[in-house]
Amino acid sequence: MILAEGMLKPGALKGKNIVITGGGTGLGKSMGEYFLELGANLVITSRKLDVLQETAKEMMAAKGGKVIPLACDVREIDQVETMWKDATEQLGQIHVVLNNAAGNFISPTERLSTNAFNTVLDIVLKGTSQVTLTAGKYWIANKQPGTFLNIVTTYAWTGSGYVVPSAAAKAGVLAMTRSLAVEWAKYDIRSNAIAPGPFPTEGAWSRLLPGDLVKKFDPAKKVPVGRVGEHQELANLAAYLVSDYSSYVNGEVMTIDGGEWLKGAGEFNNLDQIPDEMWDMMEASRGKK
Amino acid sequence: MILAEGMLKPGALKGKNIVITGGGTGLGKSMGEYFLELGANLVITSRKLDVLQETAKEMMAAKGGKVIPLACDVREIDQVETMWKDATEQLGQIHVVLNNAAGNFISPTERLSTNAFNTVLDIVLKGTSQVTLTAGKYWIANKQPGTFLNIVTTYAWTGSGYVVPSAAAKAGVLAMTRSLAVEWAKYDIRSNAIAPGPFPTEGAWSRLLPGDLVKKFDPAKKVPVGRVGEHQELANLAAYLVSDYSSYVNGEVMTIDGGEWLKGAGEFNNLDQIPDEMWDMMEASRGKK
Amino acid sequence: MILAEGMLKPGALKGKNIVITGGGTGLGKSMGEYFLELGANLVITSRKLDVLQETAKEMMAAKGGKVIPLACDVREIDQVETMWKDATEQLGQIHVVLNNAAGNFISPTERLSTNAFNTVLDIVLKGTSQVTLTAGKYWIANKQPGTFLNIVTTYAWTGSGYVVPSAAAKAGVLAMTRSLAVEWAKYDIRSNAIAPGPFPTEGAWSRLLPGDLVKKFDPAKKVPVGRVGEHQELANLAAYLVSDYSSYVNGEVMTIDGGEWLKGAGEFNNLDQIPDEMWDMMEASRGKK
Amino acid sequence: MILAEGMLKPGALKGKNIVITGGGTGLGKSMGEYFLELGANLVITSRKLDVLQETAKEMMAAKGGKVIPLACDVREIDQVETMWKDATEQLGQIHVVLNNAAGNFISPTERLSTNAFNTVLDIVLKGTSQVTLTAGKYWIANKQPGTFLNIVTTYAWTGSGYVVPSAAAKAGVLAMTRSLAVEWAKYDIRSNAIAPGPFPTEGAWSRLLPGDLVKKFDPAKKVPVGRVGEHQELANLAAYLVSDYSSYVNGEVMTIDGGEWLKGAGEFNNLDQIPDEMWDMMEASRGKK
Repeated sequence: MILAEGMLKPGALKGKNIVITGGGTGLGKSMGEYFLELGANLVITSRKLDVLQETAKEMMAAKGGKVIPLACDVREIDQVETMWKDATEQLGQIHVVLNNAAGNFISPTERLSTNAFNTVLDIVLKGTSQVTLTAGKYWIANKQPGTFLNIVTTYAWTGSGYVVPSAAAKAGVLAMTRSLAVEWAKYDIRSNAIAPGPFPTEGAWSRLLPGDLVKKFDPAKKVPVGRVGEHQELANLAAYLVSDYSSYVNGEVMTIDGGEWLKGAGEFNNLDQIPDEMWDMMEASRGKK
Repeated sequence: MILAEGMLKPGALKGKNIVITGGGTGLGKSMGEYFLELGANLVITSRKLDVLQETAKEMMAAKGGKVIPLACDVREIDQVETMWKDATEQLGQIHVVLNNAAGNFISPTERLSTNAFNTVLDIVLKGTSQVTLTAGKYWIANKQPGTFLNIVTTYAWTGSGYVVPSAAAKAGVLAMTRSLAVEWAKYDIRSNAIAPGPFPTEGAWSRLLPGDLVKKFDPAKKVPVGRVGEHQELANLAAYLVSDYSSYVNGEVMTIDGGEWLKGAGEFNNLDQIPDEMWDMMEASRGKK
Repeated sequence: MILAEGMLKPGALKGKNIVITGGGTGLGKSMGEYFLELGANLVITSRKLDVLQETAKEMMAAKGGKVIPLACDVREIDQVETMWKDATEQLGQIHVVLNNAAGNFISPTERLSTNAFNTVLDIVLKGTSQVTLTAGKYWIANKQPGTFLNIVTTYAWTGSGYVVPSAAAKAGVLAMTRSLAVEWAKYDIRSNAIAPGPFPTEGAWSRLLPGDLVKKFDPAKKVPVGRVGEHQELANLAAYLVSDYSSYVNGEVMTIDGGEWLKGAGEFNNLDQIPDEMWDMMEASRGKK
Repeated sequence: MILAEGMLKPGALKGKNIVITGGGTGLGKSMGEYFLELGANLVITSRKLDVLQETAKEMMAAKGGKVIPLACDVREIDQVETMWKDATEQLGQIHVVLNNAAGNFISPTERLSTNAFNTVLDIVLKGTSQVTLTAGKYWIANKQPGTFLNIVTTYAWTGSGYVVPSAAAKAGVLAMTRSLAVEWAKYDIRSNAIAPGPFPTEGAWSRLLPGDLVKKFDPAKKVPVGRVGEHQELANLAAYLVSDYSSYVNGEVMTIDGGEWLKGAGEFNNLDQIPDEMWDMMEASRGKK
């Protein structure tokens, strides 16, 4: 059974000011909406101010609260520092940073130009580290506690072909998450990550896999629970991890993928293709165990 | 900030019937109390019926709901099967099994008798697999969905000296969790695990580490966030994982240890002993980066 | 290019006395033959004395050296202790234990009897721990150094359906390996493991997957390097890990599977099914990166 | 016992042409020397041509063979491409790339400038990916097989405070290793990594930890086997992984650290500080198990 509705007590994020990079669309937007519903105020950032402004308006109309759109290319440290200054000036103390901005190309690696490869590294890893260091230095200097939540991928630890710069960059983000979870805990700064499996967003999959390919490579087929995820399911986990209810979770990456990565990884999992009658015959032939 | 209170919406587990092995004391009891509060009914098991009966009475007085105490040594398949039969007869369809029963010795491994070593393997691994197979076979035969939540340890993947049979057995439980998460997903059965760090229970630590040792090896010292966990913090995570809100989490082990295991694992984390002035000097001597 | 010949300098294991459980057939035999070739003497054990005797004779004829066959059911601590006593009496100081004995059923888990499940746990985990503790206690009491090498599987850390008791037990062996690597290092005892991918042995695959199934589930298809392993390749890695050349390797599991487990694990690795022309079209449609 | 001498058969790398980045000093030089000894020819690269030239001369005098020094800042794609062109022109077909060039700062993360942080990312991750893509694209275009060996760290998967940019970048290299191991296997290109523990190099540790700090943080103390590594031990493992003897090893990271990272990671490993008499007392007090 799926319970695709909010799970936390009303007001669970009351008074929390949260910065979400890549917050104008897709999963960033979905998580933000739920944070709002739970009482948080938001800064949402991306490179596209017009999209952000539209989203902010829409969100506030639906959920109330305050949503501040700030343009920021996370690859540019000046823009990151300006964004942070504006965020603290407009919202006051920031309690949470959700590093969600990302970029990706699906392509055989030998077809990627140096420039394409580096662009993904820069958005995902350099971008996330710049936002993280800017926030962390500020929190430490101002003796404020803080919480990082970083969106990675299940191929951050296994790697994956055809998305290699993303794999490398997300692995870097995960290592940074774990490193700072330990190093900055003394400043009352926590760091965690989520590794989502397939949570389709409008346009994203079809942009990555055009035409019939989406059907052929239907991600639901690879997931043991037989379906893709609902955005609210991710939002529930994210809300838990940015709330104080998860104060003792630190340095952890939580996977929410229906078991997808494990299905491929386990050596004999493909034996699910053997039909029941075949197992009957095999059992009969060797005597029941 | 710690929010050691329940996090889920009231009624989040309404109508869930949950079996908790090792449910009479300690963390099993704490998780059970919160499940009750959220609307679940419980079967609690252990070898000590009198303790269970006392706990059941206490729980129902405090939280309402139904708590059924059933004696069961998980090492004995007959007792497991009887327990399961009684549980289903008394509560009806069981929705969740929380495999929490465990045993441990803290000792240099060469001082353990074969018998002591095997006792831990039998309680933790054989016991958990027997409960799991009994429940799983029943669910599959009766076309009922189900959820497993298995309590493991952070040393399930790193190993640890001085608790070697427990490390081996908990690693086995984790592998079983991941295996069945994939294999049994087609029957609508999910499997997850939690790896808790130090959550002290009455008597447990002092029994394991008598006298001054508890002070010397104060577990809080090894935890980046500087404290041990509150039972409610574990209960919150457990309630999430047995609820339908986590339907897309499958095959996952979620660690809740304040960052403890990572602190020891990272090669340079012990440099936290270098004081600020020393860093100043080092920076001065090499020129600011 | 495959170099399926011995890689170490001649005499690399000269003077080493090595106990190999499950040493009469299959991979245990192949590793043993190479150890012999490098100058070691062997004790080989299994439950079948006649097979062992035949193998010992054959090995000595081919490679020279001393090979002592000793019957031993590793599930029985008395037999293990007797085996160890005989081994030390006949060969003198034992330097290496290669825990290779194993058992497995390929079957849907719900079709396994309690007895079948526990049999695999007992052979693989209890058996290995009994041999390990017997050897370790002896080495510690007699102030002798020692080396353990334990054969596990790639699904020890990911789990796998259809071989669940094996997954649980091998995970336990791996955790024990890592635990004792740390705890017993002070006694000059090292512990490591190898996780082999598909290395076919006479009869093993066809016994596990009878009839046409072997063809349908041809393991070579899942391996990035496009083939199964040669026994000598495994023997080379094993010889390195039991030799003093690997003195600084401790607590490690080395995988030799051609990349098999990673191929399944990585989320987008199945895009290798997209033909070149399709990538061309996709590139054309979005402009060259 | 340490066997700090070469382990492979003479001529094991005969005819192999190997590019080593960061090959002028330290571990890169040590691995190179052993490759030479086994019959390989080398290209060694770094930013310092004079150091490379000196090293090349010295190596050839000691071991014979051909060593070509080529200046190359791996952060600059133009220099990487020129280096590769020169390497193939001077040595002919290149068979192996050893990505060993790296940079690191030991520092609290909040003390690092954006520039310092990005410098490490650029050398380690961008640099390695640029060398890898340049070599890989060439091999694929020319239908040549190839082998990558990437030097990472044990904190690539756990993270570590005080070396955070290095942790992030090395994690990225590891993910790239695993990704390409799968994706490029069809082109007969293998990818593996080594995670070395403490292998002191002249000046490196004392530069990172000046004055008394080296003594206080003596890395040998954290290593279960009680010592740091010998360069030849690393060279042996590296030679195996670049040789055809390891053809079936793909996508693997092999750790050679004496068990260092596991010692810190395992929750109860610090109980090694309890003296024997204390264990005696504890046993007496609870009755022998």
